[in-house]
Amino acid sequence: MTVDHEKELADLKAKVEAMGPAKVNKLSMIVLSGDLDKVLAAMIIATGAAAMGMKVVLFFTFWGTAVLRDPKKTGEGKDFMSKMFGWMLPRGRNKANLSQMHMGGMGTAMLKNLMKKKNAPSLDQLFEIAEMTGVEFKVCEMSMDLMGFQRKELIDYPHMDYCGVATYLAEAQESSVQLIIS
Amino acid sequence: MTVDHEKELADLKAKVEAMGPAKVNKLSMIVLSGDLDKVLAAMIIATGAAAMGMKVVLFFTFWGTAVLRDPKKTGEGKDFMSKMFGWMLPRGRNKANLSQMHMGGMGTAMLKNLMKKKNAPSLDQLFEIAEMTGVEFKVCEMSMDLMGFQRKELIDYPHMDYCGVATYLAEAQESSVQLIIS
Amino acid sequence: MTVDHEKELADLKAKVEAMGPAKVNKLSMIVLSGDLDKVLAAMIIATGAAAMGMKVVLFFTFWGTAVLRDPKKTGEGKDFMSKMFGWMLPRGRNKANLSQMHMGGMGTAMLKNLMKKKNAPSLDQLFEIAEMTGVEFKVCEMSMDLMGFQRKELIDYPHMDYCGVATYLAEAQESSVQLIIS
Repeated sequence: MTVDHEKELADLKAKVEAMGPAKVNKLSMIVLSGDLDKVLAAMIIATGAAAMGMKVVLFFTFWGTAVLRDPKKTGEGKDFMSKMFGWMLPRGRNKANLSQMHMGGMGTAMLKNLMKKKNAPSLDQLFEIAEMTGVEFKVCEMSMDLMGFQRKELIDYPHMDYCGVATYLAEAQESSVQLIIS
Repeated sequence: MTVDHEKELADLKAKVEAMGPAKVNKLSMIVLSGDLDKVLAAMIIATGAAAMGMKVVLFFTFWGTAVLRDPKKTGEGKDFMSKMFGWMLPRGRNKANLSQMHMGGMGTAMLKNLMKKKNAPSLDQLFEIAEMTGVEFKVCEMSMDLMGFQRKELIDYPHMDYCGVATYLAEAQESSVQLIIS
Repeated sequence: MTVDHEKELADLKAKVEAMGPAKVNKLSMIVLSGDLDKVLAAMIIATGAAAMGMKVVLFFTFWGTAVLRDPKKTGEGKDFMSKMFGWMLPRGRNKANLSQMHMGGMGTAMLKNLMKKKNAPSLDQLFEIAEMTGVEFKVCEMSMDLMGFQRKELIDYPHMDYCGVATYLAEAQESSVQLIIS
C-alpha cells in the first residue's frame, strides 16, 4: 500500500467515524395528537412504511395515548383526577374527533362516511394492518401516569411496549425517517 | 497492502453498507395543516432551503390540499358530499385562517396587515419564490379524493405532481432534513 | 495495494462523498407552537436528549416565541399593533394553555395540578434543566419582529441567540434527530 492510499483510507475512516450513529431503514414517529385526522395520517404513513419493508416504531404520548384505550375495558381504584380525565378524553380510536371542522360531531361523521364511500381504510383497518405488518407501538409511561390510564385499559396489541423519552431518542437516532404528529 | 490495512478497509466497507440509504442535500416536508400560520412556516422553511441550494419537496395532504385550490376555478359533476366539503374548506391560500387567535377573522386580518407593514413575504410571494426556485409540490391523491377536489381546481404550478405515501417515504429516506407541519 | 483493493477504496470513497453532510449526535427541534402540552413535550424531549449527551438546539418561532417572554419585563416605544399582540399572546411559559381541553382554564389548571401530584417536572423545572445541560435556544428574528417582541422582554437564558431560517437549516442538516412541534 502506498503512502497516498494509506492516507486516503485513514481520511475516509475518520469521515465515517464522525458521522454519528448509522441510520437504518426505519421510521420513528411520535404520535402526540389524538385527533382523528392526525392519527389517520400517522397510521397511513406507518402502514405504508411497513409495506415498503421499513421497520416502524410509533411512540404514543400525551393525547395520543387515548387512541389506544379499549372502550370495553375499565381501570381500577382510580383517584378522582384520573376518573375525570378518563371521562373527558376519547375512549379509544373510534371516539377521536377531527382537529377542525368537528362541528359538534357532524364534520367528523361526514369524513368517516366519506372514507367508507371512497374505500379509504378506516382506523380499525389501519390498526389491523399495523398489527399484521409488525408495526411496533411504544407508549409513554409518563403520559399514562399523567392521564391516569392503566395498562389493563389499553387495546390488545401484540407489538406494544411501554417506555420513556430515552428509548424514543435511541430509536430516532438510527431511523432514516423521523416524524412527530403534533 | 498489509493484512491490517485489508481488515481496516473491509471493516469500513461493512460500516458504510450498514448505513442504509445515503442522505442527499434535500428537504422533504409534509404539509398536513392548512392553517395560515403553519403554511407560512412551511413555505418560509421551504423557500429558505431552496435558496441555500437544497432540493425541496413539499407533500400536501389532508387540510394542506385546500391551500392549493384556485379560487377562480371550479370542479364538475361533484356529488353532494364533495360539494359540502368544497364549501366548508378554505378556497385557496388567501382564505387560510390562523390556527389560533383567528377571532372571527380579526386576528388573521391583523397578522396579514402586520406582515405587510413589516415587509414579511406574503403567501402569494412565497409561492412565487417557490416556483422560481424549483420547489416541488406533490399532492396526496387519497386526500384529493376524500376532499372531493379535482385536479382542474388547483392552482397552476409548474412543479406539481400527484402521489401516494410510498413516494413520500422514498423521498424522505434520502432527505437530510425531514419535517411534518401538522 | 492490489488493483482490487484500490477499486474498493475508490468506490467506498465515492459512496461516502455522495452521502451529503455528515450527521452528528444532535437534536434540532423547531418549537412553532406555544401551547402548554406541546411545549412540555418539546422540553421533555430536549432535556432527555441533553441528558443522553446529545447536543440540543431549539428554534423558537411564531407562537413559540411567546413562551420565552418574561412576565416581569416590558418593552418600550411599541406601536399599537405590537401592543395589541403583546396583550393577546401569553406572557411567558406559565401562561401557556393546553391546545385542547383548556375549558376556560379548568383543564389547564387540572393538568398542572396533576403534574405536581405525580412529580412530573414543571415547565419551570424543565427550563432550569435545559439551562444546566446546555440546551441552546435560537429565536426566530422574523417572528420577534412580527409579534412585536423586543429582546429585552425575553427571559434571561445564558444559551440564547437570535437567528433566521438559514441557521436552522444548517443545524438540521447535520442533526441525527430533527423534529418540529407545530
